[in-house]
Amino acid sequence: MRKCLVLLSGGIDSSLMLTLVKEQRDDEVYAMSFDYGQRNKTELNAAIFQAIKFGVKDHLIITIDMSSIGGSSLTDRNMNVPKDRHDSGFNWSIPSTYVPARNSVFLSFALGWAEVLGVEEIYIGANSLDFAGYPDCRPEYFEAFEKMANLSTRRGMEKKFTIKIRTPLIRMSKEEIISEAINKGVDLSKTFSCYDPDYRSRACGHCDACKLRLEGFENAGIEDPIQYVDKERDILLAMDTTLLDEQ
Amino acid sequence: MRKCLVLLSGGIDSSLMLTLVKEQRDDEVYAMSFDYGQRNKTELNAAIFQAIKFGVKDHLIITIDMSSIGGSSLTDRNMNVPKDRHDSGFNWSIPSTYVPARNSVFLSFALGWAEVLGVEEIYIGANSLDFAGYPDCRPEYFEAFEKMANLSTRRGMEKKFTIKIRTPLIRMSKEEIISEAINKGVDLSKTFSCYDPDYRSRACGHCDACKLRLEGFENAGIEDPIQYVDKERDILLAMDTTLLDEQ
Repeated sequence: MRKCLVLLSGGIDSSLMLTLVKEQRDDEVYAMSFDYGQRNKTELNAAIFQAIKFGVKDHLIITIDMSSIGGSSLTDRNMNVPKDRHDSGFNWSIPSTYVPARNSVFLSFALGWAEVLGVEEIYIGANSLDFAGYPDCRPEYFEAFEKMANLSTRRGMEKKFTIKIRTPLIRMSKEEIISEAINKGVDLSKTFSCYDPDYRSRACGHCDACKLRLEGFENAGIEDPIQYVDKERDILLAMDTTLLDEQ
Repeated sequence: MRKCLVLLSGGIDSSLMLTLVKEQRDDEVYAMSFDYGQRNKTELNAAIFQAIKFGVKDHLIITIDMSSIGGSSLTDRNMNVPKDRHDSGFNWSIPSTYVPARNSVFLSFALGWAEVLGVEEIYIGANSLDFAGYPDCRPEYFEAFEKMANLSTRRGMEKKFTIKIRTPLIRMSKEEIISEAINKGVDLSKTFSCYDPDYRSRACGHCDACKLRLEGFENAGIEDPIQYVDKERDILLAMDTTLLDEQ
């Protein structure tokens, strides 16, 4: 039986990808997620939900500390996650939420597990359209990684198999991804995208990830089922404790 | 001021490399080590010693759990580290101590830190002669990694600089490395190589790493200053507690 490995963040993209892989392929499917020091642990719970729902053979969550490397507002609490970049003439420059070498670290771990399991295909839900600003989401990067991967493994050296890095969503827009996810029955209420959720795990609605997600839902004509921070409502609730009791 | 980053395991190779880099280059030198679930933590202490001795600007120790991936006797306590492979017609096949994708994981973390620091050169003390069996110690692997690295970074994309993967020891024999280390004043008593030390951090003397090290010292005509397990002596000591008291 053929095997494949899906990198699963718990966002819409990787959740759709897992659904497509389970639907289209008869492989034994493995999933890998990372607790890498990101602010947002809610996406890890979403990843666990999706992995269980789709009955993967095994789901490995690797804990690594990318925050010690620094350089990203996604892992460094002293840096602010940029908000509403769209509104002030968004130029898709590389934002501070970019985590240096994150995809290389993730794919390298996936490569290691793939070699142990005998997996030939590693799926990553990267997207070059939405995140044109991330260098490690470009097709040429994944091609170079694949070449490196095949020189780095025991199985590659022994010509036993060739590792393939699959990026099925790389040319899809967020709107297409959301529409397709709904068609395929992905439970979008159990996906999470926000870079900077509040203490109740509600999405901020203003970071790049939220903006893209909300725009995608709007273009697809569907309402996003996840909870967003609603500051005005929170203030009202705080002022009127009787309302709080009714919650 | 130019900066470079040295991957420092605490073995002879990376300790010599750090010495050479400090001697030959006027760069600001950074060191990175990994606590990756290996049996042998003594080498991490050696890495810390060497980093302090050579006054690196910063030394980052990254904790990652490669044992969860499995597949290697170096990280899996249920697998035995092979001993005395030389003695029964050593064919340099890839041993079970090979950790799948280890160098890719290490170099990816180094790449991330290099990008944050603005480092252009990453040094790794890999050796293709002694460990011909490790696919990720071959020059073609490092070339492919370098290509991938330059496609993965923000700085690479913005053409601000080019990352170089440097492997200055790649064609040296262990004898040459040991002789050179002694010439350059590396404190070899504060280096460690064994894959399977005992609870007192003494080298086993029989794993591939010990065999290579001991052979290198013998060929260089020098005595290895580190402690090896001496089972006969231990049994004598255990039988005669008065001897133990004298220790």
